Amino acid sequence: MTKERLYLFDTTLRDGAQTNGLDFSVEDKIVIAGILDELGVDFVEGGYPGANPTDDQFFEKKRTQKAAFTAFGMTKRAGRSVENDPGVQALINSASDAVCFVAKSWDYHVDVALGCTNEENLEGIAESVKAVINAGKVALVDCEHFFDGYKANRDYALSCAKTAYDAGARWVVLCDTNGGTLTHEIHDIVQDVMTVVPGSHVGIHAHNDTEQAVANSLAAVRAGARQIQGTLNGIGERCGNANLISLIPTLKLKDEFAEHFEIGVSDEGLANLTSVSRQFDELLNQSPDRHQPYVGASAFATKAGIHASAILKDPHTYEHVAPDIVGNQRKVLVSDQAGLSNLMEELKRMGIEADKKDPRLVDLLARVKEREAVGYSYEGAGASLELLARRHLGSVPEYFTVESFRVGVERRYNALGELVSMSEAVVKINIDGETRMSVAEGKGPINALDIALRKDLGHLQESIASLELVDYKVRILNGGTGAITRVLIESCDGAGHRWFTVGVSENIVDASFQALVDSVTFKLFKYP
Amino acid sequence: MTKERLYLFDTTLRDGAQTNGLDFSVEDKIVIAGILDELGVDFVEGGYPGANPTDDQFFEKKRTQKAAFTAFGMTKRAGRSVENDPGVQALINSASDAVCFVAKSWDYHVDVALGCTNEENLEGIAESVKAVINAGKVALVDCEHFFDGYKANRDYALSCAKTAYDAGARWVVLCDTNGGTLTHEIHDIVQDVMTVVPGSHVGIHAHNDTEQAVANSLAAVRAGARQIQGTLNGIGERCGNANLISLIPTLKLKDEFAEHFEIGVSDEGLANLTSVSRQFDELLNQSPDRHQPYVGASAFATKAGIHASAILKDPHTYEHVAPDIVGNQRKVLVSDQAGLSNLMEELKRMGIEADKKDPRLVDLLARVKEREAVGYSYEGAGASLELLARRHLGSVPEYFTVESFRVGVERRYNALGELVSMSEAVVKINIDGETRMSVAEGKGPINALDIALRKDLGHLQESIASLELVDYKVRILNGGTGAITRVLIESCDGAGHRWFTVGVSENIVDASFQALVDSVTFKLFKYP
Repeated sequence: MTKERLYLFDTTLRDGAQTNGLDFSVEDKIVIAGILDELGVDFVEGGYPGANPTDDQFFEKKRTQKAAFTAFGMTKRAGRSVENDPGVQALINSASDAVCFVAKSWDYHVDVALGCTNEENLEGIAESVKAVINAGKVALVDCEHFFDGYKANRDYALSCAKTAYDAGARWVVLCDTNGGTLTHEIHDIVQDVMTVVPGSHVGIHAHNDTEQAVANSLAAVRAGARQIQGTLNGIGERCGNANLISLIPTLKLKDEFAEHFEIGVSDEGLANLTSVSRQFDELLNQSPDRHQPYVGASAFATKAGIHASAILKDPHTYEHVAPDIVGNQRKVLVSDQAGLSNLMEELKRMGIEADKKDPRLVDLLARVKEREAVGYSYEGAGASLELLARRHLGSVPEYFTVESFRVGVERRYNALGELVSMSEAVVKINIDGETRMSVAEGKGPINALDIALRKDLGHLQESIASLELVDYKVRILNGGTGAITRVLIESCDGAGHRWFTVGVSENIVDASFQALVDSVTFKLFKYP
Repeated sequence: MTKERLYLFDTTLRDGAQTNGLDFSVEDKIVIAGILDELGVDFVEGGYPGANPTDDQFFEKKRTQKAAFTAFGMTKRAGRSVENDPGVQALINSASDAVCFVAKSWDYHVDVALGCTNEENLEGIAESVKAVINAGKVALVDCEHFFDGYKANRDYALSCAKTAYDAGARWVVLCDTNGGTLTHEIHDIVQDVMTVVPGSHVGIHAHNDTEQAVANSLAAVRAGARQIQGTLNGIGERCGNANLISLIPTLKLKDEFAEHFEIGVSDEGLANLTSVSRQFDELLNQSPDRHQPYVGASAFATKAGIHASAILKDPHTYEHVAPDIVGNQRKVLVSDQAGLSNLMEELKRMGIEADKKDPRLVDLLARVKEREAVGYSYEGAGASLELLARRHLGSVPEYFTVESFRVGVERRYNALGELVSMSEAVVKINIDGETRMSVAEGKGPINALDIALRKDLGHLQESIASLELVDYKVRILNGGTGAITRVLIESCDGAGHRWFTVGVSENIVDASFQALVDSVTFKLFKYP
């Protein structure tokens, strides 16, 4: 039996970017687009070129290999042609494969927000869609406030959808912009829309304001829609968007959907889902939700209690899906076996051959767990994990040792009466028995330390010449300024390598210094 | 038209207590039972008397006034009478109004976990229910693994439900114990159950493993069930239970339910919901989820952008419900693109009266934008914004000025040959013309600064005595250790106030110090 194709449209970088407190840089967007592309979504909506410098720069190049790289923006304004609308032109001229227009479909908003007539709005939809198709791109139309608009004026809402479809839009997406529509209404309204647009061209864009974004997306699919829009970990404005990380496993694993539909995410992609979810949280510098469906650290954790032995006997009768299918782990079994095979997998990825029976592996696993218990997170710091593993198993040369360092920050009035800050660091290292001291000023204490550390590594200096720190993240693990601090550092070199290191301490300077030393060491070892 | 009664059964203190990492004391339980009773749920399930000392003590007295105080436990064991089953006797002898039995309804588990015959299990259900009724209490039966059991052996699952009902159980509750059942299945299976138990006696107990616990609960009600079990903020094992905090507003505010059903939560109770949710988080000592439906701090927050003025003109077309109905607040984020009307709205919320024509407002807006352009983010730092605004418009007293500070971190070998770090800070402040110098050591540089700053504020010292730093977050805005650093600090005091401040600098110490000074100043100004 051939399965019908169901399409996933990711809007993490556009609607997700509306999340309160979130601010993606171009570099963040590039990394996330890569993760999404690898995962297997069909569309990566990257932002709104023409609206801000970040998105302009992001859309200078195509940022996906497989997924349709999609630009978002408004339909043409009333009273001007598409050619003379700089907004639409920016979308068309961007390095996008597809353009997703947001179009008003609630007559009230056409009047109040756009200030044009209902007919002008329809014309704007049609003309904008045609211009995108003429430019050789795929056109999509997000019908904003569709469900509320439908309830206020069914005919007009439907005519917006129909206009988009008739003009050639590949997808007409029904947006529950305010997020308050219930599952049943979604189902019924999608079915009504299908009287004017075939279901194979209908998409759903749900928000989580009643905690039903996932259910609403699935209800739309049940009714006949064939595209789902959502975000990684459900980020988004207010209560968030539909969570693709929850939807993907349900679509792939639950018979009701898996028997009828195929999605772009492979079984390998699914097995990587937990890692994708956590990587994304690391990027946002936020703690993963332990209770997140499918991928949370507690999603398969059972306070065994009365059921302990039964669970051990037959775990699947206590689990709605097997945790490893989504790359997660069962927690009730303190399963050294599961931990060990995970670790083997990691080592293989690093290119380390290890025998499963090697007793050092068990030691290494214990060491990793021990360090994770005090706050290290190797999920986002592969280079530090690799150093730990290689030191434990084979050997990483001791390129240099740090004898001591000190750093000071002083803020006071200078001779001109201006309040200024000064940061200075001194690092004393030993290379091949020879002590070298370096001193440097920096913009802050960590910067000063970084400069001093890398100032004079003797004969190693050349090897680290192109090392650059790309990102520096700090997470406080248990509240207050006296808490445990975790520092993640992302580094790169001239040859395009990128690696991540971690440091943990009560002292932010110590934690940072650990991660810096790991970064330098990794560069010397891996990319000399 | 008379509305049908829909019953809410809270299991925060029983199934919610299974949450990974959670541990309620008797005092916690007493406080939470009071909150639930006040809120208006119909049943407060308090725990498992007979299973542990906490629950024994908790069930020594009735802990609710209005809600039925409910004990949870297993049905009688096979091969002994109810009178000789200490477990059942403990439930009956507890100070409960109602007893909720958990009963196996999947034949597989009857065999593997109970080790008795299917018939013995049915007999256990019937006898246990009758004993509770004879003791003058209300009997409920939670049919464990009901949906998976139904799929494996429909007839047996139904006979468990029917046995409970026929024995006189007021409620037969269908539990989706593994949490993997989909909305549609829930609906259909509940309807099938209603061939043997009237819907007015059927309850639903859903888990969130596919992120659909709320939708599944509502689907059961649509099918005919009339009791919903859930927890505060959806806490619970693995991915949690159905979230009553999300369900209550939907049941009371959405026509599909509100027109047909009445629940025990009054309009006043609903208006207190945000407070209940946050109070509960306080008790658990966890940060409230900003994105939680209805009650999250961001649930009605809009990054206004192009829509700002339209939202303010007619907020209800941008909100699925009015925030104040659930005790929450509208929040139009003062972000990059926001205009004057946004700012006015924010000021109003702070209790600052300002005339729209006041030229200082335009200046203030320019100042906010200027600061946001260099990295400040007032979205997450309301206290810093309020200080900025009040300084600009009215006046905030200059409680103290910082003349200078310095901080040093040194890492070296101590006399015992151990590598140790030491952080020390000196702060020089001026209060009412008098200079005070304080020095402190800390676990890291920021902690040392924090302690030194708050060590001696002279006559102001008493006002900040209960100030506490709850969280400290660092975000690097454009990569590398020499980049701009933004520090967000969350503070609280003994009276339960919470406020957020921000600092931005190239220097992490400077940025932290700004946020610390803002926090202290805000405390002095707002909550002296």
